[in-house]
Amino acid sequence: MNRQWLYAKPPAGKIGKDTFQWTETAIPQPRAGEVLVRTRMLSLDPANRAWMMGKTYRDALEPGQVMSGFVIGEVVESKAPGFAPGDIVEGDWGWQDYAAMPARKLTKRTADAPLEMLIGPLSVTGLTAYFGLLEVGQPKPGDTVLVSAAAGAVGSMVGQIAKIAGCRVVGTAGGQDKCDWLVRELGFDAAVDYKAGGVFRALRAVCPDGIDVYFDNTGGPVLDAALGLMNLKGRIACCGNVSQYDVEKPAPGPMAVPGLIVTKRIRMEGFIVMDFYDRRAEAEARLARWIAEGRIKAMVDIVDGLERAPEALIGLFEGTNRGKRAVRV
Amino acid sequence: MNRQWLYAKPPAGKIGKDTFQWTETAIPQPRAGEVLVRTRMLSLDPANRAWMMGKTYRDALEPGQVMSGFVIGEVVESKAPGFAPGDIVEGDWGWQDYAAMPARKLTKRTADAPLEMLIGPLSVTGLTAYFGLLEVGQPKPGDTVLVSAAAGAVGSMVGQIAKIAGCRVVGTAGGQDKCDWLVRELGFDAAVDYKAGGVFRALRAVCPDGIDVYFDNTGGPVLDAALGLMNLKGRIACCGNVSQYDVEKPAPGPMAVPGLIVTKRIRMEGFIVMDFYDRRAEAEARLARWIAEGRIKAMVDIVDGLERAPEALIGLFEGTNRGKRAVRV
Repeated sequence: MNRQWLYAKPPAGKIGKDTFQWTETAIPQPRAGEVLVRTRMLSLDPANRAWMMGKTYRDALEPGQVMSGFVIGEVVESKAPGFAPGDIVEGDWGWQDYAAMPARKLTKRTADAPLEMLIGPLSVTGLTAYFGLLEVGQPKPGDTVLVSAAAGAVGSMVGQIAKIAGCRVVGTAGGQDKCDWLVRELGFDAAVDYKAGGVFRALRAVCPDGIDVYFDNTGGPVLDAALGLMNLKGRIACCGNVSQYDVEKPAPGPMAVPGLIVTKRIRMEGFIVMDFYDRRAEAEARLARWIAEGRIKAMVDIVDGLERAPEALIGLFEGTNRGKRAVRV
Repeated sequence: MNRQWLYAKPPAGKIGKDTFQWTETAIPQPRAGEVLVRTRMLSLDPANRAWMMGKTYRDALEPGQVMSGFVIGEVVESKAPGFAPGDIVEGDWGWQDYAAMPARKLTKRTADAPLEMLIGPLSVTGLTAYFGLLEVGQPKPGDTVLVSAAAGAVGSMVGQIAKIAGCRVVGTAGGQDKCDWLVRELGFDAAVDYKAGGVFRALRAVCPDGIDVYFDNTGGPVLDAALGLMNLKGRIACCGNVSQYDVEKPAPGPMAVPGLIVTKRIRMEGFIVMDFYDRRAEAEARLARWIAEGRIKAMVDIVDGLERAPEALIGLFEGTNRGKRAVRV
């Protein structure tokens, strides 16, 4: 039996349980060139919500299809060279127990690392933080780096990588508890609770030398505040716009664009982690070493059971997670 | 006698004649290290208006000071080594007949080129177009380049440089006459009248392959439309925000920021021409050659008489100019 969550219908405003529909179907048979995979760990990402809004860097989700998502799984049966039962693989086969995947859409992973690491810190999440910060943000030692959604999967990695790079690191997160955790546990120099209001003043107080690099996961009010505090020739690595994904009516765009972009000569640049996959091995090796050395605490927030995937994704937008949220199947 | 226009008071909304105040005072005496210069040609730029709005890349204008502006003039008397009467120099001494300028704030220019060229095409205007397009925009042959305010000083140069660089060039301008002129006289491939409405549709029709580089002089609706039409990895060179300088209430920011910046991996980057002045000689030599060869038509729109400077600047925001507007004194 193959349990599946379908994407049922576009949400009107926030996603809810009726955005998804549970179904059970037969386990597919792999054809020549395909591999039957079994889901072990399912990644939940804010981007899952963005895919419901229209075409992005991938086609929009269509109602009735299996809900999309990045997965770590195990090969059950292979009709493709190079894959054998028991291999650990990753791919985008979504919210279901089994899938017959074309071999070219799978990537083999080492079985050395725990699945909790392969689903995030040593995969999409960690690589997004690594390339987005270092290649797009171009931090220099001594720079002040701001990261939004800093207690989230990507943000928590960004802050710790920026510390390794010799920067002063400030994060924003929702709630004082998360902010305290960022400073005490993850080594951030300061953290600001964006839900407490007055984000611009609060950030200005903890960024006395301005901001050199802003790693933007959220857009919205934190982006507005950051633009006002950016230094000359500052860099904004645009990774996500999560404040605007799960809302009925998007907020207006940032008033400081393009005015302050010009006068402060800011570079604002978007990226998608897949653009950097030719250098994936290098980044994974460094991330693995930093995690092994304890220089990065790779936070993983595991929810058990495929049936709980919808509530786990809904919770992402309520900020119930710390670090990388994934569903163990 | 030294005739001067003072910056009288901040405009409430659009600038008007009461933004400035005429005065006559004694010709200053240069001290040691200073040079007495006489204004020959006064540059009028949208940035003059932006300086009234607050601190930018320079301090805000203060009511009561001589109105600022870039000038080409002639040395009358020198108390500094390296400058002699009759030398042609440039500097930012503003809207007045004479000034005693510190020598370090002056740049000597060749007397070979006509003043009309030195005030714009072979100075700030031309260099802004050259470095902004080629260094920030990074066009490749075959790219589609869009430039806003294309009939203006910078825009008209950008479009012609982009043609030399092997690109397909589209401009926006106010009114069908200017659009026809861009295509017939300056060699643009297409031009869109932004005042006719429906800018997005009109641009989409003339950019069937999307936009690779957008040289943004205006912000506002053309920026909104361009963001929607940018190709993956497109570049937006942020040069100005002229649609928002001379208004009472600025328009909301672009809704597509940061959403489309992320999904299309757009780079949006501001610049100020002075950042590139270490390479000024190279750029001036190329611009001079292209102008001499007829590959660039350097359009200059001369208004005679210092007394007409306010109306000439006001006219810039009404779009009465074609190419570089300057006041001959």
